Amino acid sequence: MSKLLDQVVGELSKLPGIGRRTALRLAVHLLRVDREDVGALSESLSRFRNDIKYCGRCNNLSDDDLCPICSDPHRDRGVVCVVEQVKDVISIENTRQYNGLYHVLGGIISPMQGIAPSDLKIDLLLENIAQGGIREVILALNTSIEGETTAFYITRRLAAQTGEESEVPVRISSIARGIGFGDELDYADELTIAHAIHNRTTL
Amino acid sequence: MSKLLDQVVGELSKLPGIGRRTALRLAVHLLRVDREDVGALSESLSRFRNDIKYCGRCNNLSDDDLCPICSDPHRDRGVVCVVEQVKDVISIENTRQYNGLYHVLGGIISPMQGIAPSDLKIDLLLENIAQGGIREVILALNTSIEGETTAFYITRRLAAQTGEESEVPVRISSIARGIGFGDELDYADELTIAHAIHNRTTL
Repeated sequence: MSKLLDQVVGELSKLPGIGRRTALRLAVHLLRVDREDVGALSESLSRFRNDIKYCGRCNNLSDDDLCPICSDPHRDRGVVCVVEQVKDVISIENTRQYNGLYHVLGGIISPMQGIAPSDLKIDLLLENIAQGGIREVILALNTSIEGETTAFYITRRLAAQTGEESEVPVRISSIARGIGFGDELDYADELTIAHAIHNRTTL
Repeated sequence: MSKLLDQVVGELSKLPGIGRRTALRLAVHLLRVDREDVGALSESLSRFRNDIKYCGRCNNLSDDDLCPICSDPHRDRGVVCVVEQVKDVISIENTRQYNGLYHVLGGIISPMQGIAPSDLKIDLLLENIAQGGIREVILALNTSIEGETTAFYITRRLAAQTGEESEVPVRISSIARGIGFGDELDYADELTIAHAIHNRTTL
């Protein structure tokens, strides 16, 4: 086999979810694409890896020291939505329904995977809140045991901090749980259905 | 969203089978990988696109004017296996059961997709055969209508050429069709089963 082909297949198949067969298909596809376009792909990969930063305020991916959301004067700086990962920010932004700021933890507390609270950007969140101006912290974490643990840990730390240092209490909320629009009851798990019934809304 | 992230997601999602969600997952994965490794991936992509050649004899992907198979003195130069694509060469090579040369057509005759015989490397195959030394041409094409059409076209052109110019007749064969090892009869199509019964082998 050609060494160049072997190399590109080897490199591509290191990516998650891409086996040697898919890598070969991608490599052959590249031959049908303009050289400039492959150059643009190649350059964007190394530029992304070398130049990307983390926002100093919210830990989101950013081109500068502050991310576009944190530096946007039109966003409500009084509300912070706490998420696990960057892709959660994108999911919520895509709804165009949220105008506050975010805080990206960069993971979730998981003793099984050896992820301790100190591995996450929880201190940064508490520092931001201690500086004042934040009225509400919305926890948008997954409903796994790890998600609940992380939510509990953050809530406890926040309660301790706001109780001692700040006079204005910070509201802590969680995104609503229930049956998704378009989801069928048949397919929902019992915990979700039970929660949806207990927390029913009056029409 | 960060421009660097947006760019890399945009470029990755141009690849076949990779949507924006997968592209984002790949981008986030790159952040956990060493910079040198992302550099190696990036470099291998553009090097592959810019420096890869096609073997002047068999049209396989190659680093040099002749591919490693065509320039290997231990291969049997009297047998040529005709395949549609580069990945077919790799599939057959992986069996380690074939010691002849290959000929990569670079596609298959398909009037529906506007691919004519002149778009394929059929003339190069006929030239190689006209130079003598080839005893057998094995057609390893798919059993689609396009595959059968291509096989028929090549057979007719070869018959015309060997009849006129060469004294030694070239044997034309096709790879065996039948039920694959480990395949169940339940799942095989009727054409394959019928063929497998007609062409049964004596034990």
